[in-house]
Amino acid sequence: MQNRLVLTATVEREDILRYTPAGVPVLDMWLRHHSRQQEAGVERDVICEIQGIMAGDACREWAGKLAGQTVRVSGFISQRSLRNSRLVLHIEYVEFVKG
Amino acid sequence: MQNRLVLTATVEREDILRYTPAGVPVLDMWLRHHSRQQEAGVERDVICEIQGIMAGDACREWAGKLAGQTVRVSGFISQRSLRNSRLVLHIEYVEFVKG
Repeated sequence: MQNRLVLTATVEREDILRYTPAGVPVLDMWLRHHSRQQEAGVERDVICEIQGIMAGDACREWAGKLAGQTVRVSGFISQRSLRNSRLVLHIEYVEFVKG
Repeated sequence: MQNRLVLTATVEREDILRYTPAGVPVLDMWLRHHSRQQEAGVERDVICEIQGIMAGDACREWAGKLAGQTVRVSGFISQRSLRNSRLVLHIEYVEFVKG
């Protein structure tokens, strides 16, 4: 069951590193994407905003460095919780790109 | 500016083929994904629902055949409109997979 999103986006906001009750570090951020994409032979503007969540030791390296940056992220999407169907991106990989 | 989602999902609902004012055929569908994914070394349940939109001549072939099927789709995500930030998947590619 595939589930993979690759997105180039600007980090509009980055929260302070938090820890789950089990001690896992988690970094929450808000991503904004803007591009031109082809659809049915016509080029169109595409805008989207999605919350990104990075969990695990790797996010310690990124904490405090992402706000305002343009990044390429990849990971899987899920609804935020059983009761909240809003989509969030669980980030497995991130790298800086030139904005 | 990359923007690509690949998702295996069940088509929960498929609308009747419609046409834009410019005469472009459009197929709207609702996708439900359920899988197990790794996050920070722990396996977790992942559920998400997202509207899929297919536009262009190719969607004529798919009309009426998707409801209830398991498919692998790929395309780009965008917010539904300037005023509605809900994410939709603009499907560029679809194939049946064994459910």
